[in-house]
Amino acid sequence: MMSRLDDDHTGGRVQELGEAECLELLRTKSVGRVAFSDDTGPVVLPVNFVVVSGSILFRTSPYATIAAGLDNATAAFEVDDIDDFLQGGWSVLVRGRAGYVDDDEEIPRGHDDRPDPWVEGVRSLYIRVTPTTITGRRIHPR
Amino acid sequence: MMSRLDDDHTGGRVQELGEAECLELLRTKSVGRVAFSDDTGPVVLPVNFVVVSGSILFRTSPYATIAAGLDNATAAFEVDDIDDFLQGGWSVLVRGRAGYVDDDEEIPRGHDDRPDPWVEGVRSLYIRVTPTTITGRRIHPR
Repeated sequence: MMSRLDDDHTGGRVQELGEAECLELLRTKSVGRVAFSDDTGPVVLPVNFVVVSGSILFRTSPYATIAAGLDNATAAFEVDDIDDFLQGGWSVLVRGRAGYVDDDEEIPRGHDDRPDPWVEGVRSLYIRVTPTTITGRRIHPR
Repeated sequence: MMSRLDDDHTGGRVQELGEAECLELLRTKSVGRVAFSDDTGPVVLPVNFVVVSGSILFRTSPYATIAAGLDNATAAFEVDDIDDFLQGGWSVLVRGRAGYVDDDEEIPRGHDDRPDPWVEGVRSLYIRVTPTTITGRRIHPR
């Protein structure tokens, strides 16, 4: 049985976003969350990222869990901007394949164009999520 | 071959957080991201949530993708608060099992204690993520 309670809640209007707008919104942010699965199920972790040639690029340690989980694997990447007070905002979901970036040529040369990890230590592994689908939606506050 | 570039980046100090602090941090937020897998891989979507008896509780439509993916399934739930300018903040990751809440008794009675979806329409299905592990970390800005 599904749980039901009386609900007088009338929320905001939802608008599905096109791929072009989703990509535009992705570029306005530098923090997103990458999701992948390991032996015990899904994992989701925040990373600092950039968009390069329509793909998501971020940097991690070669020794981190995130590196093991994103070596030629299906992945998702989520970015949002939600105003909790107004209860409106947008979210974008990239689904696709993640893999290590093997070719330094694909990494932006300018320091400012690279994804900048916050954490100290070796962060020499670049990971790319290549989108299969990009979807998003905007919720207009009530 | 892993991609390597010279890296003069010295990031912030990372601190692993205990479970009690993670739960405390979870309670300071009302928006998190739930991750699950469908036939084509991981999905991650933002939801409005509350913590009830140590579990994550949120509401969705019985007809949504999210409902199909979280019917007695492994799931992850992530909450963070990251200051992109200072490049510091914290994140908490709950891993566990998700399922429908069958018993109305388990849903908080006060309207203010219930997770409040932003989106209009029927949102009568409550989903609970029961933690197996709760981990988190704080990054102290440089």
